[in-house]
Formats: sequence, structure tokens, C-alpha cells
Amino acid sequence: MNTVLEEIFQPESIAIVGASGKLFDVHTTMFLESLVTFGYRGGIYPVNPKYQEICGFRAYPTILDIPGPVDHVISLVPAPATIRVMQDCVDKGVKSVHIFTAGFAETGQPDAGRLQDQLVSTARTRGIRILGPNCTGFYCPRSGISYCSDFPKDAGQVGFVAQSGSYTYLLVRNAAQRGVRFSKVVSYGNGSDIDEVDLLQYFAEDAETKVICAYIEGAKDGRALVGALRRAAGLKPTVVMKGGETEGGIRGTIGHTGSSTSQKAIWDAAIRQTGVIRADSIDEMIDVLVTLLFLQVAGDRRAAVVGTGGGVSVRAADECEEGGLVLSPTSDDFKRQLNRVVPYAGTVLDNPFDLPGPDLDVWARVLDLLETWEDVDIILWQICPEIEPFRDGEFRQLPIEIQRMVAFSQLSKPTLVVVHGVGTETGMESMKTMRSLCRDHGIPFYPSLRRASVAIAKCARYLD
Amino acid sequence: MNTVLEEIFQPESIAIVGASGKLFDVHTTMFLESLVTFGYRGGIYPVNPKYQEICGFRAYPTILDIPGPVDHVISLVPAPATIRVMQDCVDKGVKSVHIFTAGFAETGQPDAGRLQDQLVSTARTRGIRILGPNCTGFYCPRSGISYCSDFPKDAGQVGFVAQSGSYTYLLVRNAAQRGVRFSKVVSYGNGSDIDEVDLLQYFAEDAETKVICAYIEGAKDGRALVGALRRAAGLKPTVVMKGGETEGGIRGTIGHTGSSTSQKAIWDAAIRQTGVIRADSIDEMIDVLVTLLFLQVAGDRRAAVVGTGGGVSVRAADECEEGGLVLSPTSDDFKRQLNRVVPYAGTVLDNPFDLPGPDLDVWARVLDLLETWEDVDIILWQICPEIEPFRDGEFRQLPIEIQRMVAFSQLSKPTLVVVHGVGTETGMESMKTMRSLCRDHGIPFYPSLRRASVAIAKCARYLD
Repeated sequence: MNTVLEEIFQPESIAIVGASGKLFDVHTTMFLESLVTFGYRGGIYPVNPKYQEICGFRAYPTILDIPGPVDHVISLVPAPATIRVMQDCVDKGVKSVHIFTAGFAETGQPDAGRLQDQLVSTARTRGIRILGPNCTGFYCPRSGISYCSDFPKDAGQVGFVAQSGSYTYLLVRNAAQRGVRFSKVVSYGNGSDIDEVDLLQYFAEDAETKVICAYIEGAKDGRALVGALRRAAGLKPTVVMKGGETEGGIRGTIGHTGSSTSQKAIWDAAIRQTGVIRADSIDEMIDVLVTLLFLQVAGDRRAAVVGTGGGVSVRAADECEEGGLVLSPTSDDFKRQLNRVVPYAGTVLDNPFDLPGPDLDVWARVLDLLETWEDVDIILWQICPEIEPFRDGEFRQLPIEIQRMVAFSQLSKPTLVVVHGVGTETGMESMKTMRSLCRDHGIPFYPSLRRASVAIAKCARYLD
Repeated sequence: MNTVLEEIFQPESIAIVGASGKLFDVHTTMFLESLVTFGYRGGIYPVNPKYQEICGFRAYPTILDIPGPVDHVISLVPAPATIRVMQDCVDKGVKSVHIFTAGFAETGQPDAGRLQDQLVSTARTRGIRILGPNCTGFYCPRSGISYCSDFPKDAGQVGFVAQSGSYTYLLVRNAAQRGVRFSKVVSYGNGSDIDEVDLLQYFAEDAETKVICAYIEGAKDGRALVGALRRAAGLKPTVVMKGGETEGGIRGTIGHTGSSTSQKAIWDAAIRQTGVIRADSIDEMIDVLVTLLFLQVAGDRRAAVVGTGGGVSVRAADECEEGGLVLSPTSDDFKRQLNRVVPYAGTVLDNPFDLPGPDLDVWARVLDLLETWEDVDIILWQICPEIEPFRDGEFRQLPIEIQRMVAFSQLSKPTLVVVHGVGTETGMESMKTMRSLCRDHGIPFYPSLRRASVAIAKCARYLD
């Protein structure tokens, strides 16, 4: 276990250098207010010589003026002023420094690169670990630490290593809507000290983390990255998304290849050996996390789709098939059984099953039949509010769908819910209601059948 | 011009047979209330022997009891009762009958198939045209006729031929959110009389229709369908989406092929010759419509992307490239010009341009530079609200983005806006605001860069 990183995630006191007393200062809001919102129990020390008090906390002119010990420092001052802050950290005996500020090696300017090197060498004189520069830092709900006050307060099982602060916002917020919670999320920016390899190693061993995900743009050491990914994936499901721009940075270190092989091909080949699940977008990464956490499928993935809407049902087969699910064909005998419980004209009694009408009894009886159907391992319920009549801007069917969810959530076979469409106000409201019910029932929720199918196919070996 | 169909879309009186006085009866709501909501100016006659009055309209026991002439009849009665209704239509001299009810040939039952045949032969004794059975009918805002009261009241340029009622709801409602309006939308169901070929021919000639789209599952006559698509596409941009299930129905008529060719391959080959734009989903169909209607791009599609967020910007290049756009590389000289107007550290002055900060002056100056950049034909603005700090559940940046939209909408180069992410409450609200501003300014709006790029690539020959 990497005890140094473990310590960084559990500091007993935090100083925020460059916090501002200006109302709604964005950086102060990010860090100081998040600590308050998350109920961080350690010492909180804003540092800024211009203020006596910031957001109700006493402010100190420098780190050295803080009376007690300081474990962790968040630095918001402009890049050139960072060296002075780091020297103060050395003198104070700080353990870790998160440098939020940009304007270092990522600019490509030699001066800025040297500034970053100087920062690292200053820190190393006392073994201070650096997160950044140019990153949002870390979110560890168990420690009450966050850089975003609306992230979930409760901890979960996913660890996220991110070479992009913005993607942590996008992933955490959107995955949270679908029930995913995080152990730790770390944005490491330029990775001048703590880098993707350290973090992958840490998460691989972290008992709190059951699933790892990573967004990586480039690597200082491609071989080490591939090794870390391989070890992580050997221990836990590991999902990786690659940012395109800096593939050139990986080329030299991973590959030994001629000019005919593209950078993307080199990365693809390297990552294929590691056993990680590859996600092509943040959306897909969320789908995969939802699948790993909430879908229990054993054996084959033979599916039944139930829902309402002719065209939608016709397309459902294509979407599932494109993603890698197989829709089980119905036998004549099974159709006869269905016919006895579904009295409607205009109803397609084949898989996908188009079941119009608000009749809850019919719904329950069809679900009972699907439960007993031996050719099916997983039951998908697709809902498309926008194909139904609205009344007064409401999805008339919603109260019925909410009741249907009760029956659906009691199935013993693995289930999932898809609500698609939802570009309209009414559609979005209905989607949010159904998504929230899925969250409450631990049922995986997806915004399209294709996305559900792709995610299930990607997770295949972990679901068996 | 098909004057018969033209007449059907402009009836002077409509009888709704089987309308019910029950509160919120779904079918009555669909048809009778929609006519009222749309301000239909012709005669409206509910027909049902059980009621004296329905929704404030005098009800008649049969069509024959209606005092004046009846041009169009909507039949909601159960399938077996439809023959009697059709006989009354013959006796009354009705011009067209829309049979909403299901339970005919689509069931695959011989009896039900014979019932449909009987309906058609009864209608033909007096030249009555039939829409359906098993369909929602037509929406023609110019005539004040709809089967959905929340469809847009104003008419537009898109004609939609749909072998699925549910997809008309999905398409019209969602496309409307992005500014698309329709000339006529026709759901033709089993197509017992009026079919996809008739409708494609009609729309090809209809002066009100500038763009045609079609959702087709199967065809009675594959060769005729291919011919109609070719003629339509020769006259107007024509977008087609194929429902998968009934490809078998097309096989026998279009193809002359051995067992090694898949049904999908036959359809693909046939449709490729027609010159239509193929959409793989309703989402993609909407993207294509938005592109055809609102994006004016001439010549090459060399793009510049502006927006905020590191990871998001890195991925932007991949997404655009996958879709078929080319991001123009910045010259050193152009970078120097940008550097003079963008003073921020942490800002990537390469295409895609990552422009953080709320500074409207910088935004205006960057847009000015992009306007003068000769290597760029189109400017994409990507917004990802969920990567930004929220305050009190609001996207803090939104008021700034709204002001930015003003500058953006004044550009002379073709522009488009992408708002992506938006699974959170705050994200959705921000998206809706920006989408509505795009609508007001006639700027194409897309939910992802990939979707924008794919749509542009698909429309390429119409944009040149």
C-alpha cells in the first residue's frame, strides 16, 4: 500500500494559499466552500496577506504564520509566486501541496518548464509530494474533501485518475445521477510529481476502491503506464479513456515502430495487452461504470426487451444487436402463453415486446412469463416518453410507469431500464423521475439501448 | 401534383367516429382536442350513438346523421366495426378515411388481413382514399389539423413520411426544440391504400416541402419505393431511416440475389443508388434536418472549435475528425495574433481553442480573429456546463454564455453550437436556455460534436 498517498488523502489540516475574500471568488468557492460543505473536520487556513478573515475563517499572511501544523496546501497564487509558497511549505513541514495554478510546463514555454522543475526540486528537499500543477486536485468524500461543493457527500467504490479537471466534473456529476459513487477522484494535471502511474498503483491496492477508471492524455513513461494499467486490470475492473491530442508523447516510449504505424494504432495495441476496458467517451465510461456496479449478469447475454411503441420496438432489435446483445426469438408455445395474458390488438408479441396500454395486470403477467423464460438472461425495459400523448405538459403515462417500476424491480433476473429520446421538457422530467427510481432500486439506467448494449459487451468478462 | 392527396390535407369538415365523452379519453384527446387546439376552421363532428355531446360538440349517432357534407373521417372504432363505418362513408360521399384502429393485416392473422382487403374494396367503390389502418394519421399545421396537441402550431419546410406513429411524436417534438418545423407529417401504418410511394411522390412535388424525411420499415413494392426515393432525392434533400424488422419484406422485390447476401446488404445497395441521405436513428435524422435547414456552409468544411475545458477540448479534435470535419491547424503567425488578445495562462491557443474566463472582450476579439482566418469555413462553439462550478444549483457561467451568444450570432461565417454532457438538472437547464437562443438566432444546435460532424458529413453534397 502506498502509505504516502494514503496520507495525502487524509490530511489533518489544509491551508488554501491565495484564497480571496471577494464575494463568490471562483477559486475560493471551489476549495474553501467545498471543505465547509463537505464538513471537513480538520483545520482550515486561508492564506492571503490582504485579508484578516475569509468566509468566516481567520486568514494568515503566510503559511508560516499559521499556529498549528499544516498537512496539505492548496496553492492558488499565480505561477511565478508558487516557488515562494513552496519554500514556505518546506519551512513549515507541509506533507503535500496541490498546485491548482496553470502556467507551467503545459505552456510549452522553456521558462515555465524550468519553474515547474524548480518547484519539484524545492519540494523534494523535504519529501513534499506535489499534485499538479494545473489541476483541480482531489475529491475524497470519506475525508470531507472536495473541490466541487455539489459532488456527492457519500463515498463509493470507484476511483478516478484524471488528467483533466473538467472531465472529473463531467464524470462525477453525471455518474452520480445514475447512482455511481466514488472512493477518490484525483486530477493530476501536469503530473510533475504524483502521476498516473502512482495513482493507478494506489487505486489498485486501495481497499475502498473496487473499480478504477482513468482519463489519460499522455504519459511521461509509456512502458510504466502500460505496466500499471496491466497490474490494475489484473486486480480490479479498470476502465480507460484516452485523450487524443498528446498521443505523440506516448509514441516514443511505448512503441518500436516504423512510420507506417499511426500513433493511435500504437496506443491501441499497447492498451489491448493490458486487459483494461476501453471507453471512447465520458458517456461510455459512465455506462461501463453503471454496468460494472449494478448489472449482475451471469452466463450468456440473451435479452428480452419490453416497452411501448411500434417504431421504437422495431429499432430496438437493431440497437441491441449492434451493441452485442442477442434478442431471444420467441417460440410458438411462448407466444401462445403471451397471447393469453395480452389481449390487445396492435401489440407485437415478439421480442422486442411492444406492450401498449396502461394495464398493470397485463404488465405483471408478462413480467412473470419473462421470468420463467429459459432463453432469457436479462430483461430490458425501454421507455420513450416522447412517443406518448402529453397532457398539460405532463407525460400522462408517468404515474403508470412509476407503478410498473415496482413490479419490474421485483424481478429476480437481471434487469435494466432505458429511457430514450428526452429532448423535450416533459421527456426530461420523466427521464429524471425514472432515473431516480432506478437509482433507488439499484437498477442500471441507460439513455439508449445502443449505449446499454455497448457497455454490456465491453464489460463482458467481468459480468460472467 | 397529386391533387387527391392535396385535398386530403385540406378537408373542409372532419368526423371522428368512436370519439368518446369519457374524461381524458386518449383517442378523443388525440384527435378532437388537437383540432380545437390547432384552431381547425372546418366542421368538427364527433360520431358516437352513446353521446349527445362530446367536448362541447354535438355528437351524431352515425356519419349519415351529420347534416352537411363530410370530407374526412377519422375512425377509432374496433377493427370489426370499421367495415360498417366505411359503408357509411361510401353512402355519405366522404373523400378520405383515416383508420386509426389496429387489428388488421399487421397481426398476420388471415381473418384480419381479409378485413383490411374488404375495407379497401368498399372504399374503392366510391374512390375514397384510406390512410392506415393502424396509424396516427396526419399533422398539417397550415390546415389546423394534428393528432397531437403539443406539436408546433406553425408550419415549416419538412415533410415526414412515417411507417410509425410513435416516431412522428419523437421526431416532431424533438426537432421542434431545435427549430425545425413541418409542412406535413403522415403516419401511414399498414399502407392499405395510401403508401410510402404515394407520399414520397406527393412530397417531391409539394411546394410547401423543401426537405423530405421518411421512416420506412418495409415496402409493398421495393422497386417502386427505390424509384420514388430516387425521384424525391433528385428534387429535394431526402433523409431516410430504415426500421430493421421487416427487411425480409423488401428482399423479394428489390433484390435478385443469392443466399450469401444479407437483407441489410440488399437494402443498403438499393438505397445507395437513390441519392438519399441515410440516417441511422431518429436523433441522426434530426441532426441532418437541422444541418440542412440552418447550416450554410459552402466549399470545404475546415472548422475552428472554441469553448472552455481542457479535456473537453482535447477530445473535440477526435470527435470532429471521426465525424468528418477537419480542424484547421494554427500557424505561428495566427498564434501570435491570438496571444495578443488572450492573456490567460492555462489557455490552449491551438484549434480547438480552450478559452476559460468570463471575459467578454477576449471572446469578442477571438471571434474577430476567427472571422478573418482564411483557413476556416465554419466556427463551432462547444459548451459543457457540467465542467464548470455551479452555484446554488445554477450554472454560474450561464449569464456570460448568454451574452457570448450575442457576439457569436453576429459572425458572418457559418456557425454552430454544441452543448454536451447535460445529465444533471443544472446541465439540462443550461442546455435548454442555449438551445432556445440558437433557435431564436437560427443557429444550428447539436448535443455533441460527433453528432454535429456526422450530420455535416452526411449532408455534404447539399451544403456545397
